[in-house]
Amino acid sequence: RFAVKALAGGQNVELLSAQVKQFSPEVAVVMDDGLAHRLGKQLPRAHGVEVLHGPEGYKTAATMDSVDMVVSAMAGSAGLIPTLAAVEHGKPVALANKESLVMAGDLLMGLAREKNVPVVPIDSEHSAVFQCLAGNRRQDLKQILLTASGGPFRGRSRSDLAKVAVADALAHPTWAMGARITIDSSTLMNKAFEVIEAHYLFHTDYDDIDVVVHPQSIIHSMVEFVDGSVKAQLGDPDMRLPIQYAVTYPDRSAWDARRFDITKQDLTFEVPDMETFRLLALGYEAGRRAGSAPAVLNAADEVAVAWFLEERIGYLDIEAVVEHSLESVAWRPMKTVEDVLDADAEARAVAAAHAAALAAR
Amino acid sequence: RFAVKALAGGQNVELLSAQVKQFSPEVAVVMDDGLAHRLGKQLPRAHGVEVLHGPEGYKTAATMDSVDMVVSAMAGSAGLIPTLAAVEHGKPVALANKESLVMAGDLLMGLAREKNVPVVPIDSEHSAVFQCLAGNRRQDLKQILLTASGGPFRGRSRSDLAKVAVADALAHPTWAMGARITIDSSTLMNKAFEVIEAHYLFHTDYDDIDVVVHPQSIIHSMVEFVDGSVKAQLGDPDMRLPIQYAVTYPDRSAWDARRFDITKQDLTFEVPDMETFRLLALGYEAGRRAGSAPAVLNAADEVAVAWFLEERIGYLDIEAVVEHSLESVAWRPMKTVEDVLDADAEARAVAAAHAAALAAR
Repeated sequence: RFAVKALAGGQNVELLSAQVKQFSPEVAVVMDDGLAHRLGKQLPRAHGVEVLHGPEGYKTAATMDSVDMVVSAMAGSAGLIPTLAAVEHGKPVALANKESLVMAGDLLMGLAREKNVPVVPIDSEHSAVFQCLAGNRRQDLKQILLTASGGPFRGRSRSDLAKVAVADALAHPTWAMGARITIDSSTLMNKAFEVIEAHYLFHTDYDDIDVVVHPQSIIHSMVEFVDGSVKAQLGDPDMRLPIQYAVTYPDRSAWDARRFDITKQDLTFEVPDMETFRLLALGYEAGRRAGSAPAVLNAADEVAVAWFLEERIGYLDIEAVVEHSLESVAWRPMKTVEDVLDADAEARAVAAAHAAALAAR
Repeated sequence: RFAVKALAGGQNVELLSAQVKQFSPEVAVVMDDGLAHRLGKQLPRAHGVEVLHGPEGYKTAATMDSVDMVVSAMAGSAGLIPTLAAVEHGKPVALANKESLVMAGDLLMGLAREKNVPVVPIDSEHSAVFQCLAGNRRQDLKQILLTASGGPFRGRSRSDLAKVAVADALAHPTWAMGARITIDSSTLMNKAFEVIEAHYLFHTDYDDIDVVVHPQSIIHSMVEFVDGSVKAQLGDPDMRLPIQYAVTYPDRSAWDARRFDITKQDLTFEVPDMETFRLLALGYEAGRRAGSAPAVLNAADEVAVAWFLEERIGYLDIEAVVEHSLESVAWRPMKTVEDVLDADAEARAVAAAHAAALAAR
């Protein structure tokens, strides 16, 4: 059913080489010239794949004539430009790259509307919302209920949080993820990003996006309609499902998914504690301010989490760095990608300076 | 948005008269000539409504040229003929009358397919399934999960059930309903009827319809797709929602529904105990046997419940009467409405005789 026309990787030449041999794309992309050279040497001469590199290479992969859909799954702000390029060229995008929406939601979704290009979410919560909205009119949506596991520190107090060490925060209960997103899940910053993503993906006011803490992570999110009906999408947590749905949508395709047994555990729900987990409240605030604020939120958090992971600042300092950056970086509208990257760069500098000041205490 | 073109009632002339004055239909129908006379006298001469009565009256109401959709909500087997007539005349049907599907599911859905007429469920469980299926291909459905409150005797043993009195059984935890359906809910017979209805409504094998006990009655039912994704429809139990959705579908319409708060209670799920609640197992068996078996199941249960409500037989005798009737009435295919009504009549006679024998012990 699917053919891989281009594969874009980062620095893991060994994995990309194996995938190129398995899927025989026309194009493979890596981060720089040296990596491209290494990849080329690992592939048989007769293979015929064209090896590209760097921002231009990613953009080429995302806009090739033979490509019907782009899965945008790069990490970080590097995903923004190829994602915008894909939409600009009319390619439907299956979107796993958070930054495209958090940093540049207005730009990306504005362009998608202008080009009439679907942007289908891969994130499990947004996929759940997307699945629940299928078969309903957008105007019948009243409220999005994003579920959150609550992270490993659910129920803790501010003084508990002040003592959290890196090792504590890296023990996320449900999903196996990278270090930054694991920390962001524990602070609920990740949920704030998801609120902002939902706002842009589904054109929904922040007042109509609620977070519900659901520690079992069985219900992946819910939608309430104007008639009071609520739909939920649920199942065992497995990212293969939302990834697949994003590319098969509106159809579904059988695979060897584990059979879900709802009788195995009780489902519980709580209101999130935004006074303890202030990054969630700051996320709503940044979302509502729009313009540069979400990009600043993302950049400052990335810097702060890196400093925390290096054990140079404390757990609650992440929040302090983010809050300081939101206050200090002047608000501006985001009209171009350059505006986004400028706000991002300024926020990183401000955040790093504040983190350094906190580390020097 | 809606105009009521015909109103069909039973014997409650006062209520029907008030509704005729409120909605000004072209036609009103009651059960017999005497009631029609009484209704006519209660309406102002200038009102212009035509008062009809009896089976021909109901059929006329269900097939009028000015009618775009028929809400089939009569109780019992009397609903079958007008429902079939509506489908025969190409009228989409919003179906609350269980007997149309349990007694004559093959006939009704066969005719609906032939005439390409939608049959939209009003029952809350089937409405939930119908809502979850919206936006998905029928072929992507893997399993229907019908939720059941479990009734007031969930967790009880056979010897407990043997002692159940009428008053105990009429205390249903969630929905306010008539006496027969309250008893049927307590025995899980009603859930068996719903399994049979789901089989016909959604063209789903009995192996792919599971009952899940969910005492809070918040999730109204679920659907599992071939990719392992599960969708659920949930909310406070209020029949106004599925009734409205059946007539507004695929759109939704705002009304003063109570805002649903999922943080108010935990959701729990259990496998139903079909060894204690044997009517659910008998229901699956009758459904799989098809032909006359579901009609016999329904008729025998109606008779048995009536005898139980009159305190002439015990609670577990309901099951004995149903089982005996299923064994004693010769299986036959259901090719016409007459076949259905014959099986119904024979089963009632057999069930009454067996109930009388049990009562005489």
